[in-house]
Amino acid sequence: MTESIQRARATTASYSITMRLHTGTDPAVIGELATKVAESGGITTALDVVDSHPDSLVIDLTASASDGDHASELVAAVETLDGVHVHKVSDLVFLLHLGGKISVESKVNLRNRQDLAMAYTPGVGRVSMAIAEHPEDARRLTIKGNSVAVVTDGTAVLGLGDIGPMAALPVMEGKAALFKRFAGIDAWPICLDTTDVDEIVRTVELIAPGFGGINLEDIAAPKCFEIEAKLRERLDIPVFHDDQHGTAIVVLAALTNALRCIDKKLPDARILVSGGGAAGSAIVQLLLAAGAVDVTVYDRIGLLHRDDERLTPAWRSLAEKTNPRGLTGDLRAGLQGADVFIGVSAPRILDPLWIDEMAPKRVVFALANPDPEVDIHEATKHATVVASGRSDYPNQINNVLAFPGVFRGLLDARASDVTTEMLIKAAEAIASVVTDEQLNPNYIIPSVFHPDMSKTVAKAIVDCVAKAPDAEG
Amino acid sequence: MTESIQRARATTASYSITMRLHTGTDPAVIGELATKVAESGGITTALDVVDSHPDSLVIDLTASASDGDHASELVAAVETLDGVHVHKVSDLVFLLHLGGKISVESKVNLRNRQDLAMAYTPGVGRVSMAIAEHPEDARRLTIKGNSVAVVTDGTAVLGLGDIGPMAALPVMEGKAALFKRFAGIDAWPICLDTTDVDEIVRTVELIAPGFGGINLEDIAAPKCFEIEAKLRERLDIPVFHDDQHGTAIVVLAALTNALRCIDKKLPDARILVSGGGAAGSAIVQLLLAAGAVDVTVYDRIGLLHRDDERLTPAWRSLAEKTNPRGLTGDLRAGLQGADVFIGVSAPRILDPLWIDEMAPKRVVFALANPDPEVDIHEATKHATVVASGRSDYPNQINNVLAFPGVFRGLLDARASDVTTEMLIKAAEAIASVVTDEQLNPNYIIPSVFHPDMSKTVAKAIVDCVAKAPDAEG
Repeated sequence: MTESIQRARATTASYSITMRLHTGTDPAVIGELATKVAESGGITTALDVVDSHPDSLVIDLTASASDGDHASELVAAVETLDGVHVHKVSDLVFLLHLGGKISVESKVNLRNRQDLAMAYTPGVGRVSMAIAEHPEDARRLTIKGNSVAVVTDGTAVLGLGDIGPMAALPVMEGKAALFKRFAGIDAWPICLDTTDVDEIVRTVELIAPGFGGINLEDIAAPKCFEIEAKLRERLDIPVFHDDQHGTAIVVLAALTNALRCIDKKLPDARILVSGGGAAGSAIVQLLLAAGAVDVTVYDRIGLLHRDDERLTPAWRSLAEKTNPRGLTGDLRAGLQGADVFIGVSAPRILDPLWIDEMAPKRVVFALANPDPEVDIHEATKHATVVASGRSDYPNQINNVLAFPGVFRGLLDARASDVTTEMLIKAAEAIASVVTDEQLNPNYIIPSVFHPDMSKTVAKAIVDCVAKAPDAEG
Repeated sequence: MTESIQRARATTASYSITMRLHTGTDPAVIGELATKVAESGGITTALDVVDSHPDSLVIDLTASASDGDHASELVAAVETLDGVHVHKVSDLVFLLHLGGKISVESKVNLRNRQDLAMAYTPGVGRVSMAIAEHPEDARRLTIKGNSVAVVTDGTAVLGLGDIGPMAALPVMEGKAALFKRFAGIDAWPICLDTTDVDEIVRTVELIAPGFGGINLEDIAAPKCFEIEAKLRERLDIPVFHDDQHGTAIVVLAALTNALRCIDKKLPDARILVSGGGAAGSAIVQLLLAAGAVDVTVYDRIGLLHRDDERLTPAWRSLAEKTNPRGLTGDLRAGLQGADVFIGVSAPRILDPLWIDEMAPKRVVFALANPDPEVDIHEATKHATVVASGRSDYPNQINNVLAFPGVFRGLLDARASDVTTEMLIKAAEAIASVVTDEQLNPNYIIPSVFHPDMSKTVAKAIVDCVAKAPDAEG
């Protein structure tokens, strides 16, 4: 029983199946089915009798498993029951994605010729001429005022790596759905069939007239740095690389509140960041901009040190800003006396016992997805505050807290750039949603479903633009 | 009164204004307002008392005018009424376009963590991996199966010319709205900030993974020919230039029924096409493919003749396929004895009296927009069948009859190409919607709101793909 409970804990909606079962009419079968699923470590989330015949029932049983093999085990287990026949197994995640997850809808009625004459020719010609004469009116009279391109080349999709632009599309659609759900933004996926930096930059530049902002997504490092820098220079709409800046904002927000919990200050904290890739560099830069002083980065060659000859250009750029005490060595060496560990690197590289060698009252953010740097359950035994990217533990650090509100603010303020100050203010806004009364080591960061979240972040961005010396509002 | 009736006839919903009026409380004012608008040649389409005070009324009066100056005249006329003050004038077309005409909506619920885990990470990763392993599943599991990019460079927008990509956006949004309204397709505008052929081709190639089809729109000739040809060669999704092929389909459909009316056959008909640009060449090629033999093209150098040294490459390509009787001279010379005139050229270039010099039982399609080659009212006195692009006369030849159904069919059949046979079958399908009983010189083409239209066209396309030797369905 202990084993089945433990397994059940790890089931996930992302492995939900619905089995269509043919059974006998003995009412006991319902209970037997649910018991069998539970004994096999699954969780029954729905059970519907969809048809009833004199000598048989048709039942849809929906259950969560922990992975694909486990889902197959659940099916096999149910089939061992007397008189139960599994007719068909549907995978709920695949059903949900059928036909795509977003749609384009018309906001205008097209009922008759009058409607056509106003929304399309000849009426639309007057609107086009108005924009040709006053380009700044495009944001008011078209979707440019509310649209974001979600751009990827498919080279670093989630934890799956370089799976290409078409396989990245379900993720980009999901992102677009989140943009709508959390900030009312019309986002459209642009999946690029090239991995060449200059081609990516040029393509985004060429499609920019129709969009009010560019969200770069899942583009591999170090290429993503160059793409973002070039686009920021060339475009008059804001460019945001969510894997970097979205992550950095949420990490800074969580760290702000984690330090509130343990009564330490950012400038005094010794911080070890594991992972010098896209997310890691953005986190480091934002922490330094927000006032952190003692930040050291670990990557697979060890603690990054400016004198190390093995540094890549991206690592060198990090090493030159960090490691003020000139540390060398491995991950464990970096942890000695550190107040904060932030992992955006690889699964299971941190032994929970090493956490004891950190400073008293320590913070561990293990953000590698889906498998964190350290077992979260174990980490909580050794650190005061623990956070991860997982939804099944407290303190989920999730970019959805940041990017919808950031773009809402950028669009509302008609901003042309994203500044570091905006990122810091967005982090402060997220942190501020957790009141002193609510704050505790298991609640340092609000839920993505917190109703004020994107509005609060958007307001912080709009305020930044309004008070900038070259405000464009 | 005759003058005001004549003017009223030319009013259009594309010049609708709403005046907010403050008036006295004498009930006679309502009648006076409507009378004043009518006397000034406008049409009152709505009149609402929005607020009433002891000594005043607030009234919203909506009226159609024939153009911007006429709208101003209506306002001035209303202001001459005693005690009437125009507080504010709103332009309904601009109001309709505020904030853009399309939106992106999520088709999945995102209510809680379970929903996020299925629609986004980690569940979406399984869908992405499935596509990485089986790319053909992308059309089933993403929006690729139902999405079309509406691509323009803004160089030939409606009759407005080269107004640039951002000013073209309202038109492309309108097109996207029509795609949804008439065929349930998710279309997104891509407005390109370049007019270079190779850059346009390469950009469309790079964004193609996320789309199931490409609709080129309002790209100037002769560039559009090369862009389309190159894209068709390089892409595995269908490419359709609506200004060419959409127009050609609808013209062939209308001509088929016009010839049914006057009992002539396409192979026997002498056809003069005025305008050797994008639309004209596509029309000529489709007419020839459908069986026409005697087609001659007129453009500003005169009737196109293969020996003419002034021919551009595009005109030469047309001249080599047409003008079998070796005609030379001007537009009037080309009309002598012709059965059919098809104009896709310029306003008011055809004297109605020249029509009398055509063959008996003649057809005139004057499609220049918004001002046709000949006054339509005059043309009907001289020709048996007259059609135009205008919604205020019978027989409106409108691309909306074709492109939604064409793309619906292409997407449903998972076609990778558009063939000439498909265009012919689409035209036949549109023509066939008008039954023998319905057919008459004032009804050769169905309304765009005909409920069967896009389904009928889509079926014709799907049937074409199904019976093609290298069927891909």
